[in-house]
Amino acid sequence: MALQIGFLVFPGVQQLDLTGPYDVLASIPEARARLVWKTREPVLSSNGLAFTPDTTFDDCPPLDVICVPGGSGVGKLIPDDATLGFLRAQAQTARYLTSVCTGALVLGAAGLLRGKRATTHWRYHELLAPFGAIPVQDRVVRDGNLFTGGGVTAGIDFAFTLAAELIGADAAQALQLQLEYAPAPPFEAGDPATAPRAIVDQLRAQTAATFAEREKIVATAAARL
Amino acid sequence: MALQIGFLVFPGVQQLDLTGPYDVLASIPEARARLVWKTREPVLSSNGLAFTPDTTFDDCPPLDVICVPGGSGVGKLIPDDATLGFLRAQAQTARYLTSVCTGALVLGAAGLLRGKRATTHWRYHELLAPFGAIPVQDRVVRDGNLFTGGGVTAGIDFAFTLAAELIGADAAQALQLQLEYAPAPPFEAGDPATAPRAIVDQLRAQTAATFAEREKIVATAAARL
Repeated sequence: MALQIGFLVFPGVQQLDLTGPYDVLASIPEARARLVWKTREPVLSSNGLAFTPDTTFDDCPPLDVICVPGGSGVGKLIPDDATLGFLRAQAQTARYLTSVCTGALVLGAAGLLRGKRATTHWRYHELLAPFGAIPVQDRVVRDGNLFTGGGVTAGIDFAFTLAAELIGADAAQALQLQLEYAPAPPFEAGDPATAPRAIVDQLRAQTAATFAEREKIVATAAARL
Repeated sequence: MALQIGFLVFPGVQQLDLTGPYDVLASIPEARARLVWKTREPVLSSNGLAFTPDTTFDDCPPLDVICVPGGSGVGKLIPDDATLGFLRAQAQTARYLTSVCTGALVLGAAGLLRGKRATTHWRYHELLAPFGAIPVQDRVVRDGNLFTGGGVTAGIDFAFTLAAELIGADAAQALQLQLEYAPAPPFEAGDPATAPRAIVDQLRAQTAATFAEREKIVATAAARL
């Protein structure tokens, strides 16, 4: 019996939110990884890479793992009833409910973070609380069967954490060796706590409009819960 | 003038070899990232994710950066004259010639590693020497305008290294913060030097047939140079 792993894919997905965990989890021999969306028409990622969904909301089997990536397109998903309804329905039977980056805000809008410890991309972290989540500053946060990852590349750490849960620590380490995951970033700028202050300030300023827009979308969605 | 970045895509590409660097480099505002192959027909990655090439060998403009990812499909590329010819022609004018994982073996077969320091996936590292490369055990290796990354996830470290070269260290660090690249693997198994010995031995055994097959393909290709 295959392990059904469904990644939500949508216009404006941040592709590495999805592709990092996909390559880790799809390497599990018994896994059947799917790209799930409303239709099978190709969709473009934030950076223009085309993905072709292979499963629709209507024909998706019950998933063992649901993973919601983030990206520039989450603003349109947060108020989208079809997406939220699909996630709520799948969450009733899934073994693991998961997100990477701002995908957590979509789970929040579906009411699936209430009273749960969770994380998201550092820039949008304060948007977890309106959904009743307990915000935790960590790269991967687990609360029962809910696993949330931080921004973009945190999805890879999330995926190995989940792999250990699914197939055991030894098999997860064999996967890690196969994917040669011994990261050595050339700079220490990936975390706002260690990045040069000027760079953090600059990025905050550059994303201020996006933050303000998402804050409103989140407030509206939270009020509906 | 856009910065033309072409990723070779092919049946059996290891998708994270490609998607990691793609999301980093395509985030550069002036970049135009392309997926280049013989035709625009969709191709499947090693783990079954579909990619749709947007550029063919015939209509590809001169690239500033050529990146060759690896994967289960490299065995068919190493002897492929159309692919090797395309890479040789582009290499004459490209600013940077790059590879991730076993993509280095394709550069080797094109004669582009002779006398150059290079790396590849740890399991296939000894297949660099037959192509006249100077094998170096490191996550990212630079020799002049040639940048090679180690296995799979090393592509992300490679991409930030190249980004610093293309847009400067400050802008590369802003990208790193945006992609929250502050990795925290749950295990230390990503490098054969630190992974549990039993897991290294097991993976070597599991990949022995693939290694033997690639060794023959490489010997044949090296003899043609």
